[in-house]
Amino acid sequence: MNDTMSGAANWGRWGKNDERGAANFASAERIRDAASALVRTGKVYSLAIPLQASDVPVLPPRAAPQHFMRLDGGDYAAGLKRKGGFQTSDDYIALGTHATTHIDALAHVWYEDRLYNDFPANTVRSNGAKHCGIDKLVHLVGRGVLIDLCAHRKLPHLPSGEVITPAQIQDCAQAQGTELREGDILLIRTGWMSVFRDKATRAEFFKTEPGIGKEAAEWIGRMGFAAVGADNWAVEAIPVEGDVPAPVHRRLIRDFGVYLMELFDLDGLAADGVHAFLFVAAPLRITGGVGSPLNPLAIA
Amino acid sequence: MNDTMSGAANWGRWGKNDERGAANFASAERIRDAASALVRTGKVYSLAIPLQASDVPVLPPRAAPQHFMRLDGGDYAAGLKRKGGFQTSDDYIALGTHATTHIDALAHVWYEDRLYNDFPANTVRSNGAKHCGIDKLVHLVGRGVLIDLCAHRKLPHLPSGEVITPAQIQDCAQAQGTELREGDILLIRTGWMSVFRDKATRAEFFKTEPGIGKEAAEWIGRMGFAAVGADNWAVEAIPVEGDVPAPVHRRLIRDFGVYLMELFDLDGLAADGVHAFLFVAAPLRITGGVGSPLNPLAIA
Amino acid sequence: MNDTMSGAANWGRWGKNDERGAANFASAERIRDAASALVRTGKVYSLAIPLQASDVPVLPPRAAPQHFMRLDGGDYAAGLKRKGGFQTSDDYIALGTHATTHIDALAHVWYEDRLYNDFPANTVRSNGAKHCGIDKLVHLVGRGVLIDLCAHRKLPHLPSGEVITPAQIQDCAQAQGTELREGDILLIRTGWMSVFRDKATRAEFFKTEPGIGKEAAEWIGRMGFAAVGADNWAVEAIPVEGDVPAPVHRRLIRDFGVYLMELFDLDGLAADGVHAFLFVAAPLRITGGVGSPLNPLAIA
Amino acid sequence: MNDTMSGAANWGRWGKNDERGAANFASAERIRDAASALVRTGKVYSLAIPLQASDVPVLPPRAAPQHFMRLDGGDYAAGLKRKGGFQTSDDYIALGTHATTHIDALAHVWYEDRLYNDFPANTVRSNGAKHCGIDKLVHLVGRGVLIDLCAHRKLPHLPSGEVITPAQIQDCAQAQGTELREGDILLIRTGWMSVFRDKATRAEFFKTEPGIGKEAAEWIGRMGFAAVGADNWAVEAIPVEGDVPAPVHRRLIRDFGVYLMELFDLDGLAADGVHAFLFVAAPLRITGGVGSPLNPLAIA
Repeated sequence: MNDTMSGAANWGRWGKNDERGAANFASAERIRDAASALVRTGKVYSLAIPLQASDVPVLPPRAAPQHFMRLDGGDYAAGLKRKGGFQTSDDYIALGTHATTHIDALAHVWYEDRLYNDFPANTVRSNGAKHCGIDKLVHLVGRGVLIDLCAHRKLPHLPSGEVITPAQIQDCAQAQGTELREGDILLIRTGWMSVFRDKATRAEFFKTEPGIGKEAAEWIGRMGFAAVGADNWAVEAIPVEGDVPAPVHRRLIRDFGVYLMELFDLDGLAADGVHAFLFVAAPLRITGGVGSPLNPLAIA
Repeated sequence: MNDTMSGAANWGRWGKNDERGAANFASAERIRDAASALVRTGKVYSLAIPLQASDVPVLPPRAAPQHFMRLDGGDYAAGLKRKGGFQTSDDYIALGTHATTHIDALAHVWYEDRLYNDFPANTVRSNGAKHCGIDKLVHLVGRGVLIDLCAHRKLPHLPSGEVITPAQIQDCAQAQGTELREGDILLIRTGWMSVFRDKATRAEFFKTEPGIGKEAAEWIGRMGFAAVGADNWAVEAIPVEGDVPAPVHRRLIRDFGVYLMELFDLDGLAADGVHAFLFVAAPLRITGGVGSPLNPLAIA
Repeated sequence: MNDTMSGAANWGRWGKNDERGAANFASAERIRDAASALVRTGKVYSLAIPLQASDVPVLPPRAAPQHFMRLDGGDYAAGLKRKGGFQTSDDYIALGTHATTHIDALAHVWYEDRLYNDFPANTVRSNGAKHCGIDKLVHLVGRGVLIDLCAHRKLPHLPSGEVITPAQIQDCAQAQGTELREGDILLIRTGWMSVFRDKATRAEFFKTEPGIGKEAAEWIGRMGFAAVGADNWAVEAIPVEGDVPAPVHRRLIRDFGVYLMELFDLDGLAADGVHAFLFVAAPLRITGGVGSPLNPLAIA
Repeated sequence: MNDTMSGAANWGRWGKNDERGAANFASAERIRDAASALVRTGKVYSLAIPLQASDVPVLPPRAAPQHFMRLDGGDYAAGLKRKGGFQTSDDYIALGTHATTHIDALAHVWYEDRLYNDFPANTVRSNGAKHCGIDKLVHLVGRGVLIDLCAHRKLPHLPSGEVITPAQIQDCAQAQGTELREGDILLIRTGWMSVFRDKATRAEFFKTEPGIGKEAAEWIGRMGFAAVGADNWAVEAIPVEGDVPAPVHRRLIRDFGVYLMELFDLDGLAADGVHAFLFVAAPLRITGGVGSPLNPLAIA
């Protein structure tokens, strides 16, 4: 491990064959502790936006999710025979794994031809990622914490392009009374989803966004968070700091093995003032997938 | 509610607008209790089979799941420019919602043109299910129990077509020392998945299966289980009892509002002898979907 | 047949079982005559726009065509083994049948629950159109004529929303020296595609369009044309005349059995001043399809 | 050009930028001559098999074509409102471009990292083939000839694995009275499709096939045929001669730039004894596609 802003931060930390990265921080012990300490009412919050073709944010040039019925009630209304009275429906979906609420696999972003933990990027081919695919994560469960910057700053959303710093996160956590711990899944509420929800501002949604910057990425990596999610479309501030695209993705995913999760709906947690909870993400076990659509749950 | 083997068993029980059915039995209190009582080590089990195009069971005429890379490491190897050194991959999936480990929505099966809770089947159209879609479930969390009939009977799998009875389930539960409670998510291990895994018997997998029968369906509905899942492809015994297709689906989904979940991998839980756990299913929030692929998790 | 503006214009004309409609006007004799009389140089014009995901017009809410590589040169560059030196690529497409240059099947539009030739609309179900699907057309070959209204009027494109009349078509044909005959496939150049091609006006493309109106539809049906295509997105003028959606589609497709074809690129023919040619459309033989993407050819 | 069995046979023949290959042999003059000389009755034959999900041959691991209705008559039967009486249907398809009757692009097969005409294989990436894609062919029109080996040999189909030689083709042509000319599109009827059609032998269809061998490939290339199609799944004999996969594909596509077309239905032409005709293939203009589904037409 090194101390610069790039390089193999957590490589080798969990062995040279590790493909789960910082999810290892969310250990069984911490999962157990989160379940016992944080589930107080049993209320479950879904942090996903709807999975549908329209009225949802989809970053160009990705295609919007599609849903097709193979069989439906209309077929029976039109005269389809009911064998023994039996009626059924069936359907298909087709979507980009990053086209709705989702988690990035560690094989999603890299540089210098090496993935997280020194796996060669040449192993990410048309048949999927041999290494660091979403199938290697299996699950992401642990102590979730909400950093509600909107509530803290009394803003409907952070300003366009604002670069969130470690100090802002720490201040907010302190004001909320939320302790931050190694292994946490950090969820940051920027309010930016409201820019999409308001049709008057929708066209601005993908042009910029408030999000974490390089300093916060470094701090997140060093803190040992397992993952970081947000209610924006890239977690990181857009425009980015400097000339290199997606510096936060590069640093967190490839160097630290920290998972990024995007397009979350954090308003339910915020409305109830829930800042710590059992977080459960169950990515589809897509063999070689470089991301997965997600219905992340917070159990409080 | 009535006492016959068909009819509106749980209709109206949670109000005339309810679309979550027996998932209501998995109340916040029971979720809280499961989290505090059953998560002892924090070990997480995924109950999903891999989501991939080959070497997985897909009930004809459904198509196998497809996975397409939109961008991958091969593109960079072939000369794709790295803007500022940045490299990334992207992918798409296309699949039947019932073509891998999945949960049926309440809009998946019905008869006499009425869905669960008296919603008209005419509202299930080409644009999806207006009522009782998987988007109405949002989440299925609660006390999960494994009924390991294979271990109990010391068989690699139950015999082809065996109709599992309430007495068998209760005997197994008692032998395991597992109490059965209202609101539980019941997972039944038949071992039938092993018939698919063995290429010598794979061709037999979809011809028959051991599973629950009508009597067990009635008992499950009356017990107040929220859902029932199994390591076979239809939960219910095939061939079915009588002349009507899918009697267990009809009775449980449409009359009782009980969720069915199929193609589970229960071997990990069985190997560790884990019979009670916090069960978490997070279906994709497919607007109007009549099912969802799933990565169900058991946290013990 | 009747003389009003709606009703069963050509129903029964080719027998009660006919599902090809006005394509029957393009008889073998006429195909033979077109081949012998009109193919003078052997030059072939493709009238299709590119089939791709971006930079192409796709009428909302339809999704843009998608193209996925299953195997490519990048995989070999990344190290994929060449068995015996063999290298290959493979790909998939996914698209709405009406999302690019296409032909409408006769099952695409109807009213009063009856398709062309009195087939019940209830036979168009989730598994496709049992009657009047694109598979029933098989091919559309015959004498094609280009009515180049842009050239005739010396305009880059007809004005937004202009309703093209039979007189305009006849005047243009006369000026071009083009005879119009029963069985012809009529192609109308409005120039409207240029509104899409110019990024400055692209946003206007789907709001309106010049196209044929009710009077022209009636005349086209009475003339015995087999099909009518145009370089706009609906053949007919938008906004439509009156309160009923798509009156030209209704009248031509359902009553007359005349095929409509949209999103054509007619600039090549226009540039060469080619006004009569052997027209060949070979729709994909999609069983039960209600349209087909098309690469229509004009051979002159 | 060289005289060995591999190498750059037709490279440079039509200039270093050429991406249409042997389709250039099907010149405008030859198209004109075919139209005038061969279209005698105007009868049109479709040479495609149905495009559907079941009961069609799909070479593993390719997925079967899928067809989804987005809107259909069942929706209206179920109560969907008719705005002004208007009713319509809409649909989508998803398929491998090689999963039904199709044409291979020149970018489909190569060796030593060079495509036809020396284009680098590194330009075939996840976003498609930059060179030698099916979009570069645009159309394939010309004199088609049917070599009906089944009729000639009085067999329902050629024997499994038979390697068809130039002598066999020439003998058959002579017996039929069919002259073979430069620029022809050669269609070979092996009868092998009948092995699929007969459910008793269907399982044998993809294991072997009669088809052309290396000698015929060389002869086809030297003869200047534009393309060769067949009623089997690979044009070439399986098992192949020697240890190198797909030697005919390699030689014809990559060295000679000759197009291969597969899964044709040639029974209609055979039944009528039609051996020479105007052949028209209009591949979808898939930008960067390495193949296209096809409804090839023979006009006689």
